[in-house]
Amino acid sequence: MKVYFTFNSRPDLQQQLIEHFPKVEFTFHSRIENEVLAEADVLVTYGEDLNDEHIKIAKNLKWIFVASAGIEKMPRKAIADRNIIVSNVRGIHKKPMAESIIAHILSLKRSLPYIYNNQQNKIWDKKGNPTELNGSTALIIGPGAIGAEIGRLLQAFEVYTIGLNRSGEDAPFMNETHRISDLAQQLPKADIVISILPSTEETTHMIKYEHFQLMRENAIFMNFGRGNLVETDVLIRALEEKLIYHAVLDVFEVEPLPYDNKLWELDNVTISPHCSSHSSRYLERSLEIFKPSLEKWLKGDTDIENQMDILRGY
Amino acid sequence: MKVYFTFNSRPDLQQQLIEHFPKVEFTFHSRIENEVLAEADVLVTYGEDLNDEHIKIAKNLKWIFVASAGIEKMPRKAIADRNIIVSNVRGIHKKPMAESIIAHILSLKRSLPYIYNNQQNKIWDKKGNPTELNGSTALIIGPGAIGAEIGRLLQAFEVYTIGLNRSGEDAPFMNETHRISDLAQQLPKADIVISILPSTEETTHMIKYEHFQLMRENAIFMNFGRGNLVETDVLIRALEEKLIYHAVLDVFEVEPLPYDNKLWELDNVTISPHCSSHSSRYLERSLEIFKPSLEKWLKGDTDIENQMDILRGY
Repeated sequence: MKVYFTFNSRPDLQQQLIEHFPKVEFTFHSRIENEVLAEADVLVTYGEDLNDEHIKIAKNLKWIFVASAGIEKMPRKAIADRNIIVSNVRGIHKKPMAESIIAHILSLKRSLPYIYNNQQNKIWDKKGNPTELNGSTALIIGPGAIGAEIGRLLQAFEVYTIGLNRSGEDAPFMNETHRISDLAQQLPKADIVISILPSTEETTHMIKYEHFQLMRENAIFMNFGRGNLVETDVLIRALEEKLIYHAVLDVFEVEPLPYDNKLWELDNVTISPHCSSHSSRYLERSLEIFKPSLEKWLKGDTDIENQMDILRGY
Repeated sequence: MKVYFTFNSRPDLQQQLIEHFPKVEFTFHSRIENEVLAEADVLVTYGEDLNDEHIKIAKNLKWIFVASAGIEKMPRKAIADRNIIVSNVRGIHKKPMAESIIAHILSLKRSLPYIYNNQQNKIWDKKGNPTELNGSTALIIGPGAIGAEIGRLLQAFEVYTIGLNRSGEDAPFMNETHRISDLAQQLPKADIVISILPSTEETTHMIKYEHFQLMRENAIFMNFGRGNLVETDVLIRALEEKLIYHAVLDVFEVEPLPYDNKLWELDNVTISPHCSSHSSRYLERSLEIFKPSLEKWLKGDTDIENQMDILRGY
């Protein structure tokens, strides 16, 4: 059994795999080499390095483990035609993203930017006017696995959570759940508005100027889903007019955010460069998902976790 | 019944009291006026404006409500001699302090200082190397009410909590509890070391250079108790030698921290100017504690909450 990692990883993580699976022959390379590929039974990839030609060469390939969430750049038809099983690391972003979101909220509530700025200038100043998270209300738009983790943590801080999803059916760790179509009615209730919506036709430019007018003056608006949820100019106008207290943005219509974009100039916005899901533990956690699947596979059981429908894309 | 507030508060909070207690005559003044004092039955103070002479003048005074935790500056003997009841706002700092502590931890774990610095320079840079809080181990030295709240929140983030108190007996929201005398054995286990110890003879300079040598290289050390827990020079040496990853300090041996202190220069320390318990909701919450006590008092029940032994000081 030959397993080919098309990226390099920490030596200690490689060693763990080699020791855990003595009968497997592992190859770790930071690029694709056709000779290794031709003999590989299993491929582990970040999903951005494969083309149709590679699939043709990989004549023994039966399973591709994608150590990322997206498969947009993969040669999907060629893989489907060969009935190669594809599995991914679904859910791996949940914890780091939720921790980033709570970090940004608490930082603003407890005046950390004010403390950091003063420290740079050696200024001892207690007048940061911190407020508190407990007792707030949060509106979570798109409460899937990530939304549930955010809701769980917010509830620990005694925050009242309102979820918005397509059906309006109850969702985990939400005190109430409504339909996304009820957005306008729910916005005035929230101190914190968090979107983790994926990009679809319905969500493109879904949040409009009128929605910012409905938000509270003290509201924190957070976009951690897709950049096209709000037109950049609408966001800038709402922030310039101080319709809300602050925006925390992890995603943007154009990435990287252009140097001359007005958003960089505003003091009521945080620019997080699409890094909220990053983690030094990413690969470690990917391998935690990979290992039990490989164990099953070695026993001839192909019913592994997180299998994807490669043509549908999820 | 006459209640005298020796400080001013937001008009809406005053109005709430007046409406809630129609039979009480309230006076709100930002300093002590002897004529009002002479007739007051109840005094509400921050505890820093009273002297022996005031107690003599306040001949009707039966109860002092102190809207702060400390009573060091009060004329304690004069109050005790008259058997005036004193109650305070014990526990009021718990939530804002715990939120500040979690804010600082998450900010470091999720690279917020890196994000903020880059934003100031309009730099789009994803290489902040964030890590994660979940799965960490925290050592909480002094797990009273504040420590329990910190432990509760950390456990929600799937952090393993070890408490250190005098007795070593189980404490709420601690996975394990040990004696403070076992400090040296526990330090190597912790990714986060948090002290919320009050100042006593035993805790003065309790943390020594050798203790920093026992901490993990990736450890975050947080002092939110009293500044004399560590000698400033020891702290500076440990940080310069990078024995730990970062220190977050809310308290210092000398406050304000002098402009020429080396701590201001180091990049592995956060200087929080003794403000972690501050909150715009402080007075609101004080009154939430005061109201039920006043209700009891009006019914002739003097067994009110948070009564203090004024001579012993707590």
